[in-house]
Amino acid sequence: MAPIDIEKVLDRVRQALAESDWNRAVDLVEALRPPDQADLFADLPPTDQDELLPRLELEDSADILEELEEEEAAEVAGRLGTNDLARILDEMEPDEAADLLGDIDPRRAKEALAAMGEAEEIRPLLEHEDETAGGLMTSAKMTLHESMTVDQAIAHLRVIGPEAEAVYYLFVLDDEVRLVGVVSLRQLISAPSDRRIKDIMETDVVRVQASADQEEAARLMSRYDLLALPVVDQENHLLGLITHDDLVDVLEEEATEDIYRLGGVLKEHPPDIGVPSALRSRLPWLALNLATALISATVLKSFQSVIAQVAILAMFFPVVAGVSGSAGTQALTVVVRGLSLGELSLRDGLRALGREVSIGLANGLVVGSLVSIVATLLGGPPALGLVAGLATLLNMVAAGIAGAAVPMVMEALKVDPALASPILVSTITDACGYTFYLGLATLLLARLV
Amino acid sequence: MAPIDIEKVLDRVRQALAESDWNRAVDLVEALRPPDQADLFADLPPTDQDELLPRLELEDSADILEELEEEEAAEVAGRLGTNDLARILDEMEPDEAADLLGDIDPRRAKEALAAMGEAEEIRPLLEHEDETAGGLMTSAKMTLHESMTVDQAIAHLRVIGPEAEAVYYLFVLDDEVRLVGVVSLRQLISAPSDRRIKDIMETDVVRVQASADQEEAARLMSRYDLLALPVVDQENHLLGLITHDDLVDVLEEEATEDIYRLGGVLKEHPPDIGVPSALRSRLPWLALNLATALISATVLKSFQSVIAQVAILAMFFPVVAGVSGSAGTQALTVVVRGLSLGELSLRDGLRALGREVSIGLANGLVVGSLVSIVATLLGGPPALGLVAGLATLLNMVAAGIAGAAVPMVMEALKVDPALASPILVSTITDACGYTFYLGLATLLLARLV
Repeated sequence: MAPIDIEKVLDRVRQALAESDWNRAVDLVEALRPPDQADLFADLPPTDQDELLPRLELEDSADILEELEEEEAAEVAGRLGTNDLARILDEMEPDEAADLLGDIDPRRAKEALAAMGEAEEIRPLLEHEDETAGGLMTSAKMTLHESMTVDQAIAHLRVIGPEAEAVYYLFVLDDEVRLVGVVSLRQLISAPSDRRIKDIMETDVVRVQASADQEEAARLMSRYDLLALPVVDQENHLLGLITHDDLVDVLEEEATEDIYRLGGVLKEHPPDIGVPSALRSRLPWLALNLATALISATVLKSFQSVIAQVAILAMFFPVVAGVSGSAGTQALTVVVRGLSLGELSLRDGLRALGREVSIGLANGLVVGSLVSIVATLLGGPPALGLVAGLATLLNMVAAGIAGAAVPMVMEALKVDPALASPILVSTITDACGYTFYLGLATLLLARLV
Repeated sequence: MAPIDIEKVLDRVRQALAESDWNRAVDLVEALRPPDQADLFADLPPTDQDELLPRLELEDSADILEELEEEEAAEVAGRLGTNDLARILDEMEPDEAADLLGDIDPRRAKEALAAMGEAEEIRPLLEHEDETAGGLMTSAKMTLHESMTVDQAIAHLRVIGPEAEAVYYLFVLDDEVRLVGVVSLRQLISAPSDRRIKDIMETDVVRVQASADQEEAARLMSRYDLLALPVVDQENHLLGLITHDDLVDVLEEEATEDIYRLGGVLKEHPPDIGVPSALRSRLPWLALNLATALISATVLKSFQSVIAQVAILAMFFPVVAGVSGSAGTQALTVVVRGLSLGELSLRDGLRALGREVSIGLANGLVVGSLVSIVATLLGGPPALGLVAGLATLLNMVAAGIAGAAVPMVMEALKVDPALASPILVSTITDACGYTFYLGLATLLLARLV
């Protein structure tokens, strides 16, 4: 089944709203799945959103606030009355409710929290910073005690079951709420009914500290194919769970962050943020880029008299600097992604450098030869082809070295290679390209004029 | 718990192998979790791998072949005897076994398949192309019939349970093996024991056609937070399931593909492939880049006489072309990632274009002013600052237009924007930058010399 065609339903909802036929609008929305409900809801004007939301089933309102983009959800929640908001928050997954409370005006958040029935469940989640494992977790309600029997455990689940978070693993606690084991629902239903949980549980449980980076949590879940990862404090008390839907979100967020940073956009954000926010994310980079471009400008200035004598040299600037710049970007991309996925580590540094030098040499021989041929075909002085081709070859090797070494050094300095490397690599390939090219031209000046 | 320190265990395994103490090596490996086993195994020399693998429990051998990188697993499998290989394949998850058979020599694959006990389960999986939903699925053993009672269903699961794939949803079939509903394990244990499955199942099941792209399957699973996605043929017969571990793999693969393509690397591959393969993935791009750089070369050639008269102009080439090129890359990055995550679509095209033009204008005003100031400070002729600043402003707007329009047009033409756009955008920003800059310089030539 393909995702539903939101546009069609949206037209019908709009028509119902235009006729103030609330029941029909509500029926149309409630027939959708949560992510589709949220997509449709986001496309309505605020006045319609405010009319519609309180008329929906509480569960659907909660789903919509969970599924909307963060900023959008905060706006909608900000326009709700305190009691309406509190009732919806009570219905939301605890981690989503905590996130939403963190995104709205702190005074309103305090009021809503005071009006909530399940505030006690949310408060501990508010203590952890965003982007840590603790900030990602939800409260773990479906836990078992190690001394229960299988039958007692199943009866316990039947009581708390329908209200709790989706369940795949049941974490097992001792008297002091310390995490001591895990049982899967499947193990539970296949075990003899009078066995004790502590005799069927597995004790070797992958867990994460609440203060760990969310990326570490995602990496553990993805590496060990976990659907839920328990979050503990330093004394191994179970604080909460990170569930698989968060894993996908974190993976996409981290991939987007890498892509943005490699593309020179500082902060991961949705594509449709306002111009001022976009500028904050892009201008600093361009200003830095301007500063580094001045290094190449200085190189070019120092060769001013050569350029004045052989102006045709400028023709191959885009080739000598640009094409090698692309080669540097290629090397950088492979190394940064490898570091990011854990497929490369610092101890592979020398091997990676060696490989990139070989690739640069091979690329340089081919592209350098092509450049020489093109220069000759275009009818410049015969030495131009030699100079441009040789400069390309040298700069391709420089590009390989820079593309491999820069991100490795950044990683060693604990700076995100995706953030810091692209500008350094392009600065190096530009400056080296102009130096090799104009340096060689100076040596062979007699043959060029 | 942090991932285990493989290095330490590896040293001890190496020592055990050096002393031919197989039992100790086996014990050390078997104490690890599968992904750690595979990492350690991959670091051993082939001779040690071949000695060790047949000595491990069948289940551990199967885990290692499942977790190794594709190429590595194919190599190890290629060195195994047919019967050893067949026994391990029988123990592997069906989708992983099918993938491995597809990666090894076809004759050997046929022999191994003939020697397998569960070949009939694998054969249907071999029919689907890689990178389709069918190519990703595993066989679905844990299904229920709509006419079963809850008690019968639980008894059925207890019988087939331990052997089957991890279970979160139980898909419900009719007499003709058509997918008619879904029940969660949790619903099953909370339902009265004499209810019929068809009365408790949900009938609105998200599903995917076997021929659909794997990206579509991943998008459905990620959008609707699914742990398993049923794969059907055109008559809605259940063919298999895609499980959540594949989702994470596909998401990472697709993100890597986007990152590589934006970085000018044609094919997604691990960072440590050989130089010849790396060249196949990079050289065509560089050759194409060389061809497009010749457009800028032509622009520069046509302004040769201006450059000869005012060689200092060359000083700002890296600024006028380079910094705007970075701005184009920023716009491109945001639009390509937005299209890739489904946050942007073609109907947002004009709005995205408008936003990028505004951003380009704002960036251009700031960076253009900085360029003017720098040019004046560096002591060029007064008009140089004006020309460089104005060219930067104009090219920033061009970069915004190119960065938004090019990927949108590619998307409309059904070409992957991540693949085709970067080279076009940089060609446009280069050629426009030189044209604006040298064109303005020609107009103001009298004030520059």
